[in-house]
Amino acid sequence: MSSSDKAEEAAAKPPMRDALVAAAFQLFLERGYEQTTVDDIVALAGVGRRSFFRYFPSKEDVVFPDHERCLADMTAFLAASGDEDEPVRRVCDAARLVLRMYAENPAFSVQRYRLTKQVPGLRAYELSVVWRYERALAAYLRARFAGRPDGTLRADVIAAAVVAAHNNALRSWLRSDGKDDAGAAVDHALGHVQEAFAGPAGPAAERPAGDQEDVVVVVSRRGAPLWRVVQEIETTLARD
Amino acid sequence: MSSSDKAEEAAAKPPMRDALVAAAFQLFLERGYEQTTVDDIVALAGVGRRSFFRYFPSKEDVVFPDHERCLADMTAFLAASGDEDEPVRRVCDAARLVLRMYAENPAFSVQRYRLTKQVPGLRAYELSVVWRYERALAAYLRARFAGRPDGTLRADVIAAAVVAAHNNALRSWLRSDGKDDAGAAVDHALGHVQEAFAGPAGPAAERPAGDQEDVVVVVSRRGAPLWRVVQEIETTLARD
Repeated sequence: MSSSDKAEEAAAKPPMRDALVAAAFQLFLERGYEQTTVDDIVALAGVGRRSFFRYFPSKEDVVFPDHERCLADMTAFLAASGDEDEPVRRVCDAARLVLRMYAENPAFSVQRYRLTKQVPGLRAYELSVVWRYERALAAYLRARFAGRPDGTLRADVIAAAVVAAHNNALRSWLRSDGKDDAGAAVDHALGHVQEAFAGPAGPAAERPAGDQEDVVVVVSRRGAPLWRVVQEIETTLARD
Repeated sequence: MSSSDKAEEAAAKPPMRDALVAAAFQLFLERGYEQTTVDDIVALAGVGRRSFFRYFPSKEDVVFPDHERCLADMTAFLAASGDEDEPVRRVCDAARLVLRMYAENPAFSVQRYRLTKQVPGLRAYELSVVWRYERALAAYLRARFAGRPDGTLRADVIAAAVVAAHNNALRSWLRSDGKDDAGAAVDHALGHVQEAFAGPAGPAAERPAGDQEDVVVVVSRRGAPLWRVVQEIETTLARD
């Protein structure tokens, strides 16, 4: 089955698939992940083993039922980018797709967070999923930065920073039992990365084209660290 | 066995442990990782099964025999930091300990790199090791940034960026079959992260205090994205 088939199937969310996820989580919470077998899950859902394996290659996959769809969505979103898209902002927007998937179902996401912290095998599975998201972002940035000095280095560092910022916000939200504003938290965290690597997404970029030839003059001590110079520029841009 | 015991034992590098690693790699390369059992390894090394498990909890651990020692070294190095150490530079120096471990034995590191690319289980193991290094760096930075706004966010993002830059340089070196200058590659990559997050560690910082008041003047179109302005500043600083 190709990943796009999988994505379509996941998007359709057939009731049997949902029933299997619900049954699995009920059992994981009642008796523990390790103590639950696929046979237990299919018995509770009232379906056969083959139905389970039609949707999920393994017991671990039922814990993260939507990552394949989300990875496919992210890849499609990045592939649909144009040259006019500022690359760092684009990968930040791509990361927001992952947050949206978690925020769609707060109770389920919080349950899974607790489960994943307890089961080392699930933690390993999650690390491999996070790695795949990071590589998708890095691959896009590498293509955008192709031919520039340090293009792959810059791409890898920014992809890792975006993932770390996203996960920092996601974990805060999960620890609030899904009660905080997930969108605001991730916007703040990703804004931090955009500032470090691409500059603010706000007023300057949205100003009408006629104003684009205005100049900004920044005078800075040579010894000042680069981030301070960037801060000065941002302050200057914000002031007028 | 505590991790400091493990570290001491690893540092002593008893011949039996080395013999087990050598035997394991000979077999992994000859017949493949999956096709090699612990029994095969101990038979070739001429020792009993119990000796194997005295040094390595599992077959995967024999592939990465020095990470526990390196993690212990990194933790000790960070714990020995003072308030006068610039935190971003300190975590970059901590990351250099990992590179040094790889560079100590280029032929072995290159063999393992090829093996890890072929065996998904080893890839997962490696991700979990990388995650532990990243958390060690993040824990140090979180403590240093405690009480600052966005301290944990900043810590997590910088730790991820340092690990990504280190691994970008490490992979380039491994792909050169260990022939390139590993130290120069990682210095360059980590310099990139230090510039983004802490200001340049190089010439400007080392310039005598009297020169610090030199100024840099940058004139830029207002519409230019911030990263382009930063590029201009970097070029200007590098030129004179």
